Amino acid sequence: MKLIPSPFAPPAFPSLPAVRGVRAATASRGFYARRGIERDDVFLFAFDAGTACAGVFTRSHTASADVLWCREALKQGGGTARALIANSGNSNAFTGPKGVEKNDATLKALAASLNVPRESCFLAATGVIGEPLADPNYVGAIVPDLEQRLGAPDWEACARAFMTTDTYPKASGRTVDLAGAPTRFAGIAKGSGMIAPNMATMLAYVFTDAAVAPDVLQALLEEIADETFNAITVDGDTSTSDTLMVFATGANREPVIASRDDARFAAFAAALHATCLDLALQVVKDGEGASKFVTVRVEGAVSRLSAKTIACHIANSPLIKTAMAAGDANWGRVVMAVGKSLEPISQERLSIWFDGVLVAENGARAPGYDEAAASAVFAQPEFTIRVDVGVGECATQVWTCDLTHGYVDINGAYRT
Amino acid sequence: MKLIPSPFAPPAFPSLPAVRGVRAATASRGFYARRGIERDDVFLFAFDAGTACAGVFTRSHTASADVLWCREALKQGGGTARALIANSGNSNAFTGPKGVEKNDATLKALAASLNVPRESCFLAATGVIGEPLADPNYVGAIVPDLEQRLGAPDWEACARAFMTTDTYPKASGRTVDLAGAPTRFAGIAKGSGMIAPNMATMLAYVFTDAAVAPDVLQALLEEIADETFNAITVDGDTSTSDTLMVFATGANREPVIASRDDARFAAFAAALHATCLDLALQVVKDGEGASKFVTVRVEGAVSRLSAKTIACHIANSPLIKTAMAAGDANWGRVVMAVGKSLEPISQERLSIWFDGVLVAENGARAPGYDEAAASAVFAQPEFTIRVDVGVGECATQVWTCDLTHGYVDINGAYRT
Repeated sequence: MKLIPSPFAPPAFPSLPAVRGVRAATASRGFYARRGIERDDVFLFAFDAGTACAGVFTRSHTASADVLWCREALKQGGGTARALIANSGNSNAFTGPKGVEKNDATLKALAASLNVPRESCFLAATGVIGEPLADPNYVGAIVPDLEQRLGAPDWEACARAFMTTDTYPKASGRTVDLAGAPTRFAGIAKGSGMIAPNMATMLAYVFTDAAVAPDVLQALLEEIADETFNAITVDGDTSTSDTLMVFATGANREPVIASRDDARFAAFAAALHATCLDLALQVVKDGEGASKFVTVRVEGAVSRLSAKTIACHIANSPLIKTAMAAGDANWGRVVMAVGKSLEPISQERLSIWFDGVLVAENGARAPGYDEAAASAVFAQPEFTIRVDVGVGECATQVWTCDLTHGYVDINGAYRT
Repeated sequence: MKLIPSPFAPPAFPSLPAVRGVRAATASRGFYARRGIERDDVFLFAFDAGTACAGVFTRSHTASADVLWCREALKQGGGTARALIANSGNSNAFTGPKGVEKNDATLKALAASLNVPRESCFLAATGVIGEPLADPNYVGAIVPDLEQRLGAPDWEACARAFMTTDTYPKASGRTVDLAGAPTRFAGIAKGSGMIAPNMATMLAYVFTDAAVAPDVLQALLEEIADETFNAITVDGDTSTSDTLMVFATGANREPVIASRDDARFAAFAAALHATCLDLALQVVKDGEGASKFVTVRVEGAVSRLSAKTIACHIANSPLIKTAMAAGDANWGRVVMAVGKSLEPISQERLSIWFDGVLVAENGARAPGYDEAAASAVFAQPEFTIRVDVGVGECATQVWTCDLTHGYVDINGAYRT
């Protein structure tokens, strides 16, 4: 089926800086060609020696072979990276021993072409789950060709190469000053359906020429994932391939940021956070069939985790998501979702706002309730649902989209 | 909007027996009249002295005022019942002090008209959440009229009076022999959306003229609820009003079943179970927009609870539900849902069947996989998804329906 572009698609691909120490190339292995679509479906990134990396991955108990390998490589290599290769069209999840064979063949080709250790090579695959691989070398075979063509990354070509039901390529970049040294950040992400917050969501990669110790990078990435990729949801379904990785080449030739006490840590963390958040919001704005982009903020909870659980119940409720799609300010369904979360709340102190419009307070509809004003908020393409559950001081937010006829259409036709 | 009848609507209302000790009447308070629909929206049941009762209710933390009262009445009255009154059109959930006033006015009218204790009267309401009540006496005012017209229950009229987005009235009846004494069971239920297994789901009542001790009845009902109403899901959203109650009048004039050791207990339990299961499956078959009725069975789990958690992740996945709607046998999404449950499973031993068709085994697509055969199963209006997760001996099943354009339409238009 032909996908209708998201109403939130940016007018143009964003400008990304050239991150020193990173080279890339893309190619086609024909995953889409057999459906009559001419496009690249593989990318390869090569990193200079000395590149640190960190990653968070799906918590799914049916994680893909690629995810299992990345976890292992992070452990074996101690957070150093020389290559990243990803394909779209087949997720290499639930592919049994063949999936491991594909990884072995790919790693062998990478090690030989780039002359780097296996455990410095990271793999990803996205597409249909469980589709067997006819040829275990289907990615490995293209590695020598990709290696020949490595050069300054064409970020848009890379961001397009791993799209599946995405309707636009997602990227985010910035250059920040770390104690006088200009340092570049470039990130790309893909994801549109099977998006739910549980560790990282779908595939996202951030590249920077900052110099950062792997352990500092890993701890920071886990914190940031929790507030960005783990705070978005399209449908509450968690992918078998979720991956968020960051690669820090150190090519800005500055001393390594080896601890949080480093004067440059805060600026580095802020830039990485901004890049991840931008990418995460682009994923949810390209949610399958999305016509609304909604921030769900929960305040007054007993803990940040409790606030997030409540926010996810609101954001994942099919009844609320269909009401968003219809522009129906059905706030009673927000009450329902708060209740079914089973988290500590005070029904007597519960208050709800749609943007600035107070719709409920103290356990009942607000005295000055204005249906027209509430409906006007829900008619907008972007708005915020804010809930105060009245039992504590903790707050957080998640981001989601609506559930439309488009979602039903896309997911009835995806494999065909 | 005009609701399209479920394809699973029975050709006719079932035949229900006259349960001795039960009288009923229905009336209209105009909840639907103002939308131009002429129908009754209140029912009253009156029970002879000596009627035992039991109930399970929503675990929601935003439970309706009616649910809160029923819990209190069960405690105060020790499981005895003289009246049950329910209305559709307004759920009396999140209505603040006004909701409690409505209950007080209703209970006062019931106690006066029927000359019975308050704590023997049970209340229910279903409809829009949070809609304030202009007149707290809106149900109480009709009680004297209802009391005048009490008589042998018109089961169909009662089952219709509490429908909301239901497209057909739901009822189930049987007469069984308890050690020579013919004993009657009649049950009615309503529910179509906001259906998720967490204690009882929506409103369901079973009436019997068996004589059963309240504590025996309560323990049995909790067990049965877990395998019937708590094992269905339409959309994973849990109602604020969920109620399942059973009323046993004892009018069959037999000795009370006072323990599980009673020779008649097994036959009584089987009849109650059959009635609850029939009602629960009717609810899911009338799921909002449903076009498919699907049994999800999980085997080989470490515990029954684990099996149920996995089954619910499959049954609630929007990606699987949209694939059901499209007749797309996308078994990779079943793998995804098993994984995101985070329950103990063995990916290497995981097997999946669609009806009798083996689609996956030992962690990969089945060697003899036949796409046409798998698709033929998904093209049927009713089928079973069976998964063996390969780590234990425990199994269970849940029942669900698909996610269609109809669901999106109904829930965008419900309040209007």
